[in-house]
Amino acid sequence: MDCEIPVKQVHLHPGMKVEELIRVMEKAGAYNGGALTRAVEITGTMFGREDVTRFFGLAGAMVPAGMGGIVSDLIENNYIDILVSTGANLTHDIIEAIGCHHFRGTEKCNDIELRHDEINRIYDVYLPNESFIRFEEFMQDIFSKIPDGTVISISDLLAHIGSHLSTGILATAARKNIPVFCPAIQDSMIGLQFWLYRQTHKITVDAFGDMSRIIDRCFAAPVAGAFFVGGGVPKNYILQSMLMTPRGFTYAVQLTGDRPDLGGLSGATLDEARSWGKVDEDAKTVTVYGDATITFPLIISAVLEKKP
Amino acid sequence: MDCEIPVKQVHLHPGMKVEELIRVMEKAGAYNGGALTRAVEITGTMFGREDVTRFFGLAGAMVPAGMGGIVSDLIENNYIDILVSTGANLTHDIIEAIGCHHFRGTEKCNDIELRHDEINRIYDVYLPNESFIRFEEFMQDIFSKIPDGTVISISDLLAHIGSHLSTGILATAARKNIPVFCPAIQDSMIGLQFWLYRQTHKITVDAFGDMSRIIDRCFAAPVAGAFFVGGGVPKNYILQSMLMTPRGFTYAVQLTGDRPDLGGLSGATLDEARSWGKVDEDAKTVTVYGDATITFPLIISAVLEKKP
Amino acid sequence: MDCEIPVKQVHLHPGMKVEELIRVMEKAGAYNGGALTRAVEITGTMFGREDVTRFFGLAGAMVPAGMGGIVSDLIENNYIDILVSTGANLTHDIIEAIGCHHFRGTEKCNDIELRHDEINRIYDVYLPNESFIRFEEFMQDIFSKIPDGTVISISDLLAHIGSHLSTGILATAARKNIPVFCPAIQDSMIGLQFWLYRQTHKITVDAFGDMSRIIDRCFAAPVAGAFFVGGGVPKNYILQSMLMTPRGFTYAVQLTGDRPDLGGLSGATLDEARSWGKVDEDAKTVTVYGDATITFPLIISAVLEKKP
Amino acid sequence: MDCEIPVKQVHLHPGMKVEELIRVMEKAGAYNGGALTRAVEITGTMFGREDVTRFFGLAGAMVPAGMGGIVSDLIENNYIDILVSTGANLTHDIIEAIGCHHFRGTEKCNDIELRHDEINRIYDVYLPNESFIRFEEFMQDIFSKIPDGTVISISDLLAHIGSHLSTGILATAARKNIPVFCPAIQDSMIGLQFWLYRQTHKITVDAFGDMSRIIDRCFAAPVAGAFFVGGGVPKNYILQSMLMTPRGFTYAVQLTGDRPDLGGLSGATLDEARSWGKVDEDAKTVTVYGDATITFPLIISAVLEKKP
Repeated sequence: MDCEIPVKQVHLHPGMKVEELIRVMEKAGAYNGGALTRAVEITGTMFGREDVTRFFGLAGAMVPAGMGGIVSDLIENNYIDILVSTGANLTHDIIEAIGCHHFRGTEKCNDIELRHDEINRIYDVYLPNESFIRFEEFMQDIFSKIPDGTVISISDLLAHIGSHLSTGILATAARKNIPVFCPAIQDSMIGLQFWLYRQTHKITVDAFGDMSRIIDRCFAAPVAGAFFVGGGVPKNYILQSMLMTPRGFTYAVQLTGDRPDLGGLSGATLDEARSWGKVDEDAKTVTVYGDATITFPLIISAVLEKKP
Repeated sequence: MDCEIPVKQVHLHPGMKVEELIRVMEKAGAYNGGALTRAVEITGTMFGREDVTRFFGLAGAMVPAGMGGIVSDLIENNYIDILVSTGANLTHDIIEAIGCHHFRGTEKCNDIELRHDEINRIYDVYLPNESFIRFEEFMQDIFSKIPDGTVISISDLLAHIGSHLSTGILATAARKNIPVFCPAIQDSMIGLQFWLYRQTHKITVDAFGDMSRIIDRCFAAPVAGAFFVGGGVPKNYILQSMLMTPRGFTYAVQLTGDRPDLGGLSGATLDEARSWGKVDEDAKTVTVYGDATITFPLIISAVLEKKP
Repeated sequence: MDCEIPVKQVHLHPGMKVEELIRVMEKAGAYNGGALTRAVEITGTMFGREDVTRFFGLAGAMVPAGMGGIVSDLIENNYIDILVSTGANLTHDIIEAIGCHHFRGTEKCNDIELRHDEINRIYDVYLPNESFIRFEEFMQDIFSKIPDGTVISISDLLAHIGSHLSTGILATAARKNIPVFCPAIQDSMIGLQFWLYRQTHKITVDAFGDMSRIIDRCFAAPVAGAFFVGGGVPKNYILQSMLMTPRGFTYAVQLTGDRPDLGGLSGATLDEARSWGKVDEDAKTVTVYGDATITFPLIISAVLEKKP
Repeated sequence: MDCEIPVKQVHLHPGMKVEELIRVMEKAGAYNGGALTRAVEITGTMFGREDVTRFFGLAGAMVPAGMGGIVSDLIENNYIDILVSTGANLTHDIIEAIGCHHFRGTEKCNDIELRHDEINRIYDVYLPNESFIRFEEFMQDIFSKIPDGTVISISDLLAHIGSHLSTGILATAARKNIPVFCPAIQDSMIGLQFWLYRQTHKITVDAFGDMSRIIDRCFAAPVAGAFFVGGGVPKNYILQSMLMTPRGFTYAVQLTGDRPDLGGLSGATLDEARSWGKVDEDAKTVTVYGDATITFPLIISAVLEKKP
């Protein structure tokens, strides 16, 4: 065991750039603060190498918290090649794209009063019911543009939606031709709207219509990198797709608020992923435990400075 | 604000039954220990009333940790009417049902050595690769019994699998005719096996083929109760299905290791669910924070005693 | 790496004893559920061996949650030889011993209203201000029995208090002649009361008056075992006292709600303690992550059954 | 309930200053990311008002992780008027001040090998045993400068130590005449060294010698603000001292990795503190949950920019 690199005490000064802050945190290098600086390093490498295919997993209620803007910018700037998301994030992305808003509220509230005021709560974010009325109008109209009898994959359905929007994750992904996978699309307001539409129309969404598409991207990647915000289905779906290939990910960064000792995949370390071969034996990986509304913007703003 | 019910100090004695332990913990009644006793109370009511339709959400790596036995027993004894699960739990259920095992390991290990030894790790549980070879044989054989050209829903696919097994969750559910929903079936080894099979066969899994089935159960329920082990897709799918009806759940218990302040649904309180109408204004609900490998067996063994 | 002991699925039945439940959980043996059964095993060994000196660390607001009764019973039944506690737990122990109560409340409350109602909140436990008025009367009276000019150690001060009480931790410890250490006694209501008394009286509490006493017990122990509820000062004080001796603890069990990756001692693993020599290289140790209001009564009730 | 301030999606660009990042995070404003921006706001106000007496609580293993540099700079720049710390942080501060170092290691290690290599581990930080040998020499020498027969308070003992050091927290505090309180000084390596010294010398550390000093500062404060890194004794000691006065804190910021539902003070919300009157009814308070090695440097660097 070696004692070679001393922890340097952190000293700050007015007017620091984010990247400067990361550099002094890196010299300290301990606990999740240290992990965060390694995430900046690995993400910077992943974003800087042209030969890396970049998978991005998006879970947790990130769009309601304003993190969707970072994701759509990353797509815009070619830092995401494949996006896997929960249905909820895409639902909230559409809600913003059609001009509705999430609002800053408080978790110290009376949920029954909120119910009476027709406000839905996501921790300290409020979303008025009327957004869902406008969402329904938009979605039913969008679905009506798909010819009856169509069999469609989930990513094609999402691209169809995105092509009718001008801002946000789905819009940018559609414009940049980046596939958005969402294995559990039914488990979202998008899914409920589709179910409503299907009561009177015949469209089939092929649950397995996307698997070859993502697995082919895994096979085709000269080098593969993954960035996970949260765990859930997106994390597992990305990792298991790589499992079909002879190699694993070369780079992997995860931001999670969970903990490993509960056994669930969302909190599992990326070392555990090595035993499965999801991640290469010598892959550069790091897990940053904490709230992604802090760690995600901090990491990405530092990476952008290193790799403008 | 009232100060009426004093906290009673807990006194234990040798030979206590689980239900006795819960009764003394109930008299203390604070923090998650108190919440756990309220979970026993609510679950007991839910299990005791004949008119309650009981939804059960299963997330987290529970079957590898031995919790699947409790779930299949609950189905056997008519305490679960609708099961929503992650694909991983069902994969591991099949693995055990075909005679393979998970093994007790340690998280203090070298994952690269595990990789070389062909052992996959789930925190401190080990699963040899060879299980997946036997799993593949079984699954490919099972799928081959489905006629080419079939369009099938996920729950029917799972019932088909369960009907060829004799023990475990899927087997018991199939025998008892209890629907098992798994919106993100693709996101699992079952999904990967199905993708393999589909390379050379034509079966379509209709992603939305199950939604009416679960929503109809929500509409039909005279009274609805939900028990959530973990969050993820199962929790959201159950709650959103109820959202389509004029009422919400009357009873809801969740066991989760997550925390509410990160905004994600898995850690969200059931009070938050009141604002959405997923849970009734006057519903009896409780969240027990902690590892479900402790809280789940403890709660159920106490409930069984109260309600044998 | 070995795959020898299969995880057995848990099956429950009505009327189980706590110890039976632990036995089926032990056969599953994963995550914190498995850790808890190992805690039962280690604690049972520690309690069963006559030659083990048993140190007990008590942190977290355990007495307000009713856990104090378990601690005083353990002292009564000779399962604790040295107790190290936070000042808060001893304050609340005195409050109950003089006939006041903590009350079951709710965390979903308005703290400003509570303030107006003169109720102090500890998560979902309420404590009326008037308890502190009776506490003040009692404490000032107790202190007045100490002759002016006395120089006293903290443990002697606590024994003096305990000798004037008939129930609870301090009373039982005083009666059984078990030392209670509380290094940060100033940091509690007991401390504030003492400060008040000292405004007009001359008693000196020697901050270091107890150190030889606890370190001597470490030296004298043929075999040493530690049980930690929570972390904080009690955990560190017990571990550092052993550091002065050539050996470390042979047995150690900790129940904590913290997490290791934040670097703090409260969440640190007992493996980390091995590097310091606080715990022996081949010591039997286990950490159970979770709320001690669940894990503590569960473990102790199972241990009592094994070791009545 | 109002829906007035929309969540703005976060957009980042290369070259952002920390304060710019905070401003875009503030416009999103949700979960702990939003809480962090409110912490910047409140801390900025606290640091900007000349009439605020600023209390600072330091818990958790912060100095080994390089966070001590920020604390000593805050003292240097008059942003801390009263410091309350754990003994461990001060021990590690002395170790660095006498020229020893902490080293960047890994938590994925063999603690028995570390033991053999004479390296002590604090999560992923390594500290060689030899540091403690040099620490012992320094401490014994420092103590020898105190005349036998002295009765000393803990803060005077710490000021005495600091006056013989040239860098770090204790040195800066001594030079700036800022009191450092450490109620549980015995519970640290400083304490163990003092115990060793006292075997052959007669110095009495008066456990209660400091209480009037901190409570007087509470009484004298025209306006009081508190900044807590971690919980533990420092948090409680600061809050309880204010409890003696008719008012509570006007400003309070806490950074903690704990959670409220376990009942312990370290994870307790500052709203709970309102019920006790520790914090004023209309106080500006915020809790940021997460690892302070991330949140502390981020907040302070943003505050310095606003208030250079």
